[in-house]
Amino acid sequence: METYSILKDLAIILVVAKTFGLIARKCKAPMVVGEIIAGLVLGPVLHILEQTDFLTYMSEIGVILIMFSAGLETNLDELKKSGFQAFMIACVGVAVPFIGGTVLYLLFHGFDGFGTENFFKGLFIGSIMTATSVGITVETLRELGFLKGKVGQIILSSAIIDDVIGIIVLTLVIGLKDTETKPTTVLLHTVLFFVFAILGGILIYKLFKRFDARYPHSRRIPIIGFALCFGMAYLAEEFFGIADITGAYVAGIILCNSQDAGYIDRKVSVSNYMIFAPIFFVLIGLKTDLSSLTMDMLWFSLAFVAVALLSKVIGCGLCAACFKHKFMECLKIGVGMMTRGEVALIITQKGISLGFIDTTYFSAVILLIIISSISVPILLKLLYAKSPDTDVVA
Amino acid sequence: METYSILKDLAIILVVAKTFGLIARKCKAPMVVGEIIAGLVLGPVLHILEQTDFLTYMSEIGVILIMFSAGLETNLDELKKSGFQAFMIACVGVAVPFIGGTVLYLLFHGFDGFGTENFFKGLFIGSIMTATSVGITVETLRELGFLKGKVGQIILSSAIIDDVIGIIVLTLVIGLKDTETKPTTVLLHTVLFFVFAILGGILIYKLFKRFDARYPHSRRIPIIGFALCFGMAYLAEEFFGIADITGAYVAGIILCNSQDAGYIDRKVSVSNYMIFAPIFFVLIGLKTDLSSLTMDMLWFSLAFVAVALLSKVIGCGLCAACFKHKFMECLKIGVGMMTRGEVALIITQKGISLGFIDTTYFSAVILLIIISSISVPILLKLLYAKSPDTDVVA
Repeated sequence: METYSILKDLAIILVVAKTFGLIARKCKAPMVVGEIIAGLVLGPVLHILEQTDFLTYMSEIGVILIMFSAGLETNLDELKKSGFQAFMIACVGVAVPFIGGTVLYLLFHGFDGFGTENFFKGLFIGSIMTATSVGITVETLRELGFLKGKVGQIILSSAIIDDVIGIIVLTLVIGLKDTETKPTTVLLHTVLFFVFAILGGILIYKLFKRFDARYPHSRRIPIIGFALCFGMAYLAEEFFGIADITGAYVAGIILCNSQDAGYIDRKVSVSNYMIFAPIFFVLIGLKTDLSSLTMDMLWFSLAFVAVALLSKVIGCGLCAACFKHKFMECLKIGVGMMTRGEVALIITQKGISLGFIDTTYFSAVILLIIISSISVPILLKLLYAKSPDTDVVA
Repeated sequence: METYSILKDLAIILVVAKTFGLIARKCKAPMVVGEIIAGLVLGPVLHILEQTDFLTYMSEIGVILIMFSAGLETNLDELKKSGFQAFMIACVGVAVPFIGGTVLYLLFHGFDGFGTENFFKGLFIGSIMTATSVGITVETLRELGFLKGKVGQIILSSAIIDDVIGIIVLTLVIGLKDTETKPTTVLLHTVLFFVFAILGGILIYKLFKRFDARYPHSRRIPIIGFALCFGMAYLAEEFFGIADITGAYVAGIILCNSQDAGYIDRKVSVSNYMIFAPIFFVLIGLKTDLSSLTMDMLWFSLAFVAVALLSKVIGCGLCAACFKHKFMECLKIGVGMMTRGEVALIITQKGISLGFIDTTYFSAVILLIIISSISVPILLKLLYAKSPDTDVVA
């Protein structure tokens, strides 16, 4: 590929994503929905663009910067207050879809006893359903102005925690079949990552604070922030097996109390909305291969999507109700947790490569991603329009 | 390659480039020199980083955004005033190195008549020397605060024009040997591009002005600017065979008189200094393979570098003197035009792929790029410190 050919892709993505984004806003839907639809139009519908390695990398940077930005905007005091709640919501929000997915698979393919091949396939389908993809929800809440609200923070924290739990569940399922990766190793890695993040985070925060006091508002501040974000994301994946987006979020949290957090966040946001984030959202649409959807799979896929969405909203919503949230708040939390994205795709890909499930399940997962990516922003917007959070000024 | 592995590269590049950049500034050298040295240290010296396709694309975006930004900061009235001068300086600045390079090759390898194999090789070595790489000079002048000065504008315009002339010379040389590409076609394409740029530019400018008046300072303004930049860069290469950086520069010029030119430029600059531009400069160092330098080639390489640098500074400087510039101004213009970069590499690669010259000449070109990239910023800084332009406030 000639180097300059990427420029055409970038120009097309920016123009079409922005156009569809603005149309979406005219229709009172969040702009990200427009950007995802732009991807669908450019890819599976008109075949103008193809997914390339370069675009994949750019979209990866996009989702990482979204998470870093979310970390920077975190209200740590609020997170501490909502920490236990978020943890419980995440746990229930993983358990219900996991069981729901397993039961769904066994209903479609027959239950022939625990520990059988079919049972493991069911468990695998269940684990695909577990991880919330917080990127779209975060971007929607930010667009609506409610990210920093109590409900926004609970959704954000729960989604981060449920990624971790989802990955633990996945590794436990794999561990039950495969004897190479021990479940205890995974648990240990996760604990180690958070120990590393807390200890390293305190050290980095102290160093950064002195650096920031010495060179406030200089260009080196956001560049160091960027480097920390990329570095933590890499370390999380490479050494602890934790999703890179979780690492980027932690990097944001480390810096969120620093004097220049807002300044870094503004620089991150400019780079992101100008180029990386649109690529991330367009690629969700672009990656979709609707042609692999057979009628057989279509029924399963539709049931899969329904179970995945309902199990999240019911699980998280009921758990939130236990913490005495009002009905509308529970609904917002449940709906906010419904989005699925790259983690579900990664888990599916892992299952296929390990021979647990075959490639036809890919279309079900993609359908889930599309439907949740499009419906959650719209639903959230409707819910917030009906009953805005009272603790933030939108 | 795992997607997240790019994050490590990015984190390392940002931290090391910024560190070396700051050290360079402490040593009174421009930061870009530090960033190039950072690349040398990370690549050929310590072998920590390797050049990947992804980094190549990112650096391409970096140089394109540098040129777009330079276009946005263009003072059109000044350019019109200096247009003829810049054109003449560019012509002489191409002719002298072209002849110098040819003579140098023939001195080293013997002259056996016009039209012989050796003579064509000489012409090819000459054409490698022609194109100024304006990226580093522009970034240095901007850092020093003199980009918008008369001298800065002359350098910028001449460098743009000499790229075009360089490409015409290259194609003429190829055309003399190869009967497939006609020299007239190349000339026609170049003329067509500028006709297209002027007519399309006026149309785009008018449309953009209305758009800008309707949505001043909104996010869509810089995004449309970005898309125009990428689009023009792509069209220039794909349909006219003109370097993509020239297209990006033209895109900047199209928007430079619009109300929000400064606003777009600030957004471009943030995205660029945060991530793309450091990658561009680090990659110049990183790409260098010093191991291919044999003693035989070393002597030729050193002579090649000397002729390339001196012929530019003498050619451009003398021509500037004809336009009654003062001695220091001529020197600044000559030195500013000495940088060579990606265009020289591209021409060399083309020559190798056509079988005109063999791969050993690569090291000479790389040496030229490194030496000019490091020396020009230092020399410019010294020259400007001794005699700053009086028409701009630094």
